[in-house]
Amino acid sequence: MRREIGVALIGQRFMGRAHANAYAKVVPFFDPPLKPLLRVACGRDEKKLAEFARRFGFSEYTTDWREAVTHPGVGLVDICTSNDLHAEIAIRAAEEGKVVFCEKPLARDLAEARAMLRAVEEAGVPHMVCFNYRFFPAIRLARKLIREGALGEVRQFRTIYLQDWLVDPNFPRTWRLVREKAGSGALGDTAVHIVDLARFLVGEIAEVVGMLSTFVHERPLPNGGGMGRVDVDDAAAFLARFENGATGLFETTRMATGRKNFMHLEVNGAKGSLFWNAEDPNVLWFHSEGDPAAARGFRRIVVTEPEHPYAGSWWPPGHILGYEHSFVHAVYELLSALAEGRNPEPDFRDGVAAQAVLEAVLRSAEERRWVTVDEVLGG
Amino acid sequence: MRREIGVALIGQRFMGRAHANAYAKVVPFFDPPLKPLLRVACGRDEKKLAEFARRFGFSEYTTDWREAVTHPGVGLVDICTSNDLHAEIAIRAAEEGKVVFCEKPLARDLAEARAMLRAVEEAGVPHMVCFNYRFFPAIRLARKLIREGALGEVRQFRTIYLQDWLVDPNFPRTWRLVREKAGSGALGDTAVHIVDLARFLVGEIAEVVGMLSTFVHERPLPNGGGMGRVDVDDAAAFLARFENGATGLFETTRMATGRKNFMHLEVNGAKGSLFWNAEDPNVLWFHSEGDPAAARGFRRIVVTEPEHPYAGSWWPPGHILGYEHSFVHAVYELLSALAEGRNPEPDFRDGVAAQAVLEAVLRSAEERRWVTVDEVLGG
Amino acid sequence: MRREIGVALIGQRFMGRAHANAYAKVVPFFDPPLKPLLRVACGRDEKKLAEFARRFGFSEYTTDWREAVTHPGVGLVDICTSNDLHAEIAIRAAEEGKVVFCEKPLARDLAEARAMLRAVEEAGVPHMVCFNYRFFPAIRLARKLIREGALGEVRQFRTIYLQDWLVDPNFPRTWRLVREKAGSGALGDTAVHIVDLARFLVGEIAEVVGMLSTFVHERPLPNGGGMGRVDVDDAAAFLARFENGATGLFETTRMATGRKNFMHLEVNGAKGSLFWNAEDPNVLWFHSEGDPAAARGFRRIVVTEPEHPYAGSWWPPGHILGYEHSFVHAVYELLSALAEGRNPEPDFRDGVAAQAVLEAVLRSAEERRWVTVDEVLGG
Amino acid sequence: MRREIGVALIGQRFMGRAHANAYAKVVPFFDPPLKPLLRVACGRDEKKLAEFARRFGFSEYTTDWREAVTHPGVGLVDICTSNDLHAEIAIRAAEEGKVVFCEKPLARDLAEARAMLRAVEEAGVPHMVCFNYRFFPAIRLARKLIREGALGEVRQFRTIYLQDWLVDPNFPRTWRLVREKAGSGALGDTAVHIVDLARFLVGEIAEVVGMLSTFVHERPLPNGGGMGRVDVDDAAAFLARFENGATGLFETTRMATGRKNFMHLEVNGAKGSLFWNAEDPNVLWFHSEGDPAAARGFRRIVVTEPEHPYAGSWWPPGHILGYEHSFVHAVYELLSALAEGRNPEPDFRDGVAAQAVLEAVLRSAEERRWVTVDEVLGG
Repeated sequence: MRREIGVALIGQRFMGRAHANAYAKVVPFFDPPLKPLLRVACGRDEKKLAEFARRFGFSEYTTDWREAVTHPGVGLVDICTSNDLHAEIAIRAAEEGKVVFCEKPLARDLAEARAMLRAVEEAGVPHMVCFNYRFFPAIRLARKLIREGALGEVRQFRTIYLQDWLVDPNFPRTWRLVREKAGSGALGDTAVHIVDLARFLVGEIAEVVGMLSTFVHERPLPNGGGMGRVDVDDAAAFLARFENGATGLFETTRMATGRKNFMHLEVNGAKGSLFWNAEDPNVLWFHSEGDPAAARGFRRIVVTEPEHPYAGSWWPPGHILGYEHSFVHAVYELLSALAEGRNPEPDFRDGVAAQAVLEAVLRSAEERRWVTVDEVLGG
Repeated sequence: MRREIGVALIGQRFMGRAHANAYAKVVPFFDPPLKPLLRVACGRDEKKLAEFARRFGFSEYTTDWREAVTHPGVGLVDICTSNDLHAEIAIRAAEEGKVVFCEKPLARDLAEARAMLRAVEEAGVPHMVCFNYRFFPAIRLARKLIREGALGEVRQFRTIYLQDWLVDPNFPRTWRLVREKAGSGALGDTAVHIVDLARFLVGEIAEVVGMLSTFVHERPLPNGGGMGRVDVDDAAAFLARFENGATGLFETTRMATGRKNFMHLEVNGAKGSLFWNAEDPNVLWFHSEGDPAAARGFRRIVVTEPEHPYAGSWWPPGHILGYEHSFVHAVYELLSALAEGRNPEPDFRDGVAAQAVLEAVLRSAEERRWVTVDEVLGG
Repeated sequence: MRREIGVALIGQRFMGRAHANAYAKVVPFFDPPLKPLLRVACGRDEKKLAEFARRFGFSEYTTDWREAVTHPGVGLVDICTSNDLHAEIAIRAAEEGKVVFCEKPLARDLAEARAMLRAVEEAGVPHMVCFNYRFFPAIRLARKLIREGALGEVRQFRTIYLQDWLVDPNFPRTWRLVREKAGSGALGDTAVHIVDLARFLVGEIAEVVGMLSTFVHERPLPNGGGMGRVDVDDAAAFLARFENGATGLFETTRMATGRKNFMHLEVNGAKGSLFWNAEDPNVLWFHSEGDPAAARGFRRIVVTEPEHPYAGSWWPPGHILGYEHSFVHAVYELLSALAEGRNPEPDFRDGVAAQAVLEAVLRSAEERRWVTVDEVLGG
Repeated sequence: MRREIGVALIGQRFMGRAHANAYAKVVPFFDPPLKPLLRVACGRDEKKLAEFARRFGFSEYTTDWREAVTHPGVGLVDICTSNDLHAEIAIRAAEEGKVVFCEKPLARDLAEARAMLRAVEEAGVPHMVCFNYRFFPAIRLARKLIREGALGEVRQFRTIYLQDWLVDPNFPRTWRLVREKAGSGALGDTAVHIVDLARFLVGEIAEVVGMLSTFVHERPLPNGGGMGRVDVDDAAAFLARFENGATGLFETTRMATGRKNFMHLEVNGAKGSLFWNAEDPNVLWFHSEGDPAAARGFRRIVVTEPEHPYAGSWWPPGHILGYEHSFVHAVYELLSALAEGRNPEPDFRDGVAAQAVLEAVLRSAEERRWVTVDEVLGG
């Protein structure tokens, strides 16, 4: 049986670093049955790339992603580029028979996402989307409690995901603010996370009605030379109905002054509730109607016990994990699935499903009406 | 100058007690220029009413609201009944030339609310709606900060108001669950508060898109005799655009297991933000971009200092106020306005404005589309 | 049976107002079997006193406490003066056969406290000390949980009580900063509350070792005319052993910049723990080892349910109570005990017991050694 | 100039893993001028050691610490053993001319600690104690604010450090519960952290009075064979005076049911205050009297901005760091100091200073009196 897999990591910025770190840490802490070898680092800025490859210990580096993807020592292509390259790289990687691991959002739009899914399915290669928030121990515990019925029938879900990095009008117009590159703004970048968590915790979304907002319409170009138009959303909000009848409330923004990475979600069921916040991610709040009436309240569960998902592989109780650990867990699940011949989760179907919800929100915002996900999917 | 005003209080339950307590406390703590005299208590259950009148020290009581409203010693009619009686009592009180002070929601629907406004304006009597949340010191401070520009241009507003008293399917079908009596469910009962706060803090709402949900469709009748249909909403959610361009997100529910009276609101502006929660109502959280970058964060302001609205009339700093104090402040503002010959705030125009938003949400939920407030108002 | 009792309230400032308010509210909300009549208000500043008496509705007022205490219509003498008058008034009131209700600390020192206890016992009159914090619903619930064994054997208690009103060096030297008037500083004023709560929740304190600190040694005299020496403690801290073997950690200060009335206490037992904070007093945090390992955590109990002490007499769940409500509950317990012929709790024996602990701390601070409470009591 | 240094890591359990991880991460994220090479892993359980060495990528491993310490490829000896071996290993490593990096507490007692300090000074080798809590970004920021005068004169410091892993009476008697191995219990294990932070933030401690408590006196031996006596403290508490006149309150325990790794500290100064909690370690709370009176409150600073210590080397704002990051920062400071020819901080002098405070607490607890640190040092 194969015990090692060569990794080509495309992208060296925020997500590139998060993934590289995950491969480095998964071995000492989880000892996965399949070990990742950091074979090729790929990025556009060669000087920075050499540095990145050296620091993280990649065997080689290249500025040509095709070279990385076709490298014979590479079994797994990990895509951390800007969104406009996801489809092209993923499809080519699939054609080369590589495992494809892609950052969220899967693509700029639904059509691209579907093309990617088609490609990996036709090639018969394993595929995964890095919805890293699924891999926080508290989120895993939340799902477990819901699955076990601790909340009873789930009726209401609400979530907000607030950042403020666009409050300054002089923040430059990076690729994330250009529709052609990014597909959308906050919607594809941050709403996609909470859409995925909604699907993970509650189920499929049936229909949505939403609005998109842009508060600053021009920003300085990153490399000087004047101003550029912002043609994506700074903020998005939508209402939803899930297929199981639950209601959903979603908001995301890059304009919530003072909020840094404030993702909050709450699930209300007939017998209990839970809520969670990404700025205090080791804690899950859980309320059970089963507790005695006079001593009932949301329990502040510090999800760092040996009984908790992933936690036992790290530190003793109360010694908290950070943001990056979610990526280590994701990579561990990826490698475990590959070793066992299963497709990992969440996969490109999840990527497509989330993208369909975003597309429905976009259409809803344009046409000012409720849009079903089925309609978008062409059902 | 008149120094006293006789009060007829119609209603003896939750709101009746809150108002009676407010009249009792306003004198020792605020010494208003016009003193309230508790002249007539009015309610339907005579035995309980006698007890109520005795406990709070009303001079008289009656089960006939007409008698109360026409009583020559009464100058102020305070309406704390179920919603279906607001209009009739208020209109009659106005015709009698009494000051009218009415609990929220002003009416069951917009038409009723407008009729009430017409009546008080035609009669030329002062009028006020008891949106008590406006009178929490922290909310007053929030408005002051916004008005002074501490937040810069306001861009986003979000609020949730969560209760759970309908989670138990055996909770009886009280008047609040009957459309004919209540007008609507959570929408008119709790959403109306956050709509009013939105108007108070941010400005007029231009348009909305919303959904209403009922999770339990039948409940035991309060006096036995089987089950009754619930024809109002258990929960309501809507998106909004304000006239000034800000976005709004609103949700209210009586089905959020574990949440008791959890009203949360947040305002994001170009230069700062603030948030507040009714379960910790003495605290206002305020973030300013003006703070030094390395020492910036939401300030937890304990709004109990002499510099804070109303707080100096109570206790030393840090000795917290409760829910009921908001009513004392409301009554103080009412009596002060009357003494000075001003109409108090918020008045029936505010009641109509809030009702118009609710009506737009109802229509939006029925017709599954965005609805402007102007459309509802017939503009 | 007697159904009413005339009250003479001595003192019109912070505590005078808190007590007057309590008498006013106890009838509507608790309907005690014995009704308080506000007969005589007493204070030194006649102009303010007339105003105070008018606002709260006292029948009479006088600047001579002897007159108040001997008034034939008075059955209950309520002492809210500066500490130096507690003993003289209480003893005289006892001699007159009146019920004596005294603010904390019972006296300036242990000898005075004991003389007071002797006087009320010899006179056979009921007596109570107003340790108001015992009467917060959350504290009552805490005691109930401990008594029922929900925490198992109690092993550790820790509490801090932080204020900051002396941080400004120009804050004047009021009577609270003069040993002759106050007995001690933070020790008698605020530590006494947490000592009483320790006794209420955990049991008798056997021995202590402590330190007192004064950070600002001179302050402006209140009425001008230069500076006066501060001869009491700004802050006090001590370690303790309870008779049952539990350990205790206590700190109080008037110099904790930014802390307004921050009283925090935590109890750790062999099977559970609880903690509480006076700035969020409606919430009790409770941890039980009996919860399943993976879903264990401190429960945030919002102590406003009908099942909770006192809460059912006020508002629906989640509508929070404030600081002043603790006094209403205290007065309710006082009146109920009187009506039933019991002595109320906490009584002067509790006042003496708390004073003995303070005295032990004082002696310990002076002699720099552990001091047993027995030594202080039996010395 | 030397660019790499070989590391021998002695110990493979909790701290061994934390240090190994730190060496692995410091290169990609901080690129220190001197690179650590993981040369030798050392531990007692050979099977586990082989696994540990493989996972973290050590070149070699040995169960003989002498071999590790004398290894010619090793320049840095990192001691993560049980406390009883610290002195012997450190002294031998110093004699071999190696850099010595030692986990806290430096030793079992003051005499040992001093011997270690003497050894490294005589050998002229660099030395550091791993007080990892100093290296949380929030703690660094706290120190910066204090140093810059943002708090004014520091007057009061209080800290508690609560764990609960000994609540279960069947938890075995590991080496940490044996005086000969550990020196002391909670005192040396957890109190030493808060003593070091006190010194880091406030200054030298002049005198203490304390108490030690053991609640469970016998526990099962780890390898079966009956019960063993616990001869160390389960909990420790003490009062302190700092040399600069500030007061200190310290408590630590392994018996605080429900508290996992709850380290809380607060500093009050004449012009401001701050507090911090290790279970939410990315947040620093800071209050400034300089803020406007009506908008003053503790600021919740999320210490993840580029302006904050270390934070810029990790992730974007709001993406939180965990417990283990403090070790990465410590190792970075160690390597930077070595590269620049400075002795790192905190060093063995800090280890001795902390140990002297612990020794004073021990003596104080035995002799039931205040003990000065000078007395302990000069005795």
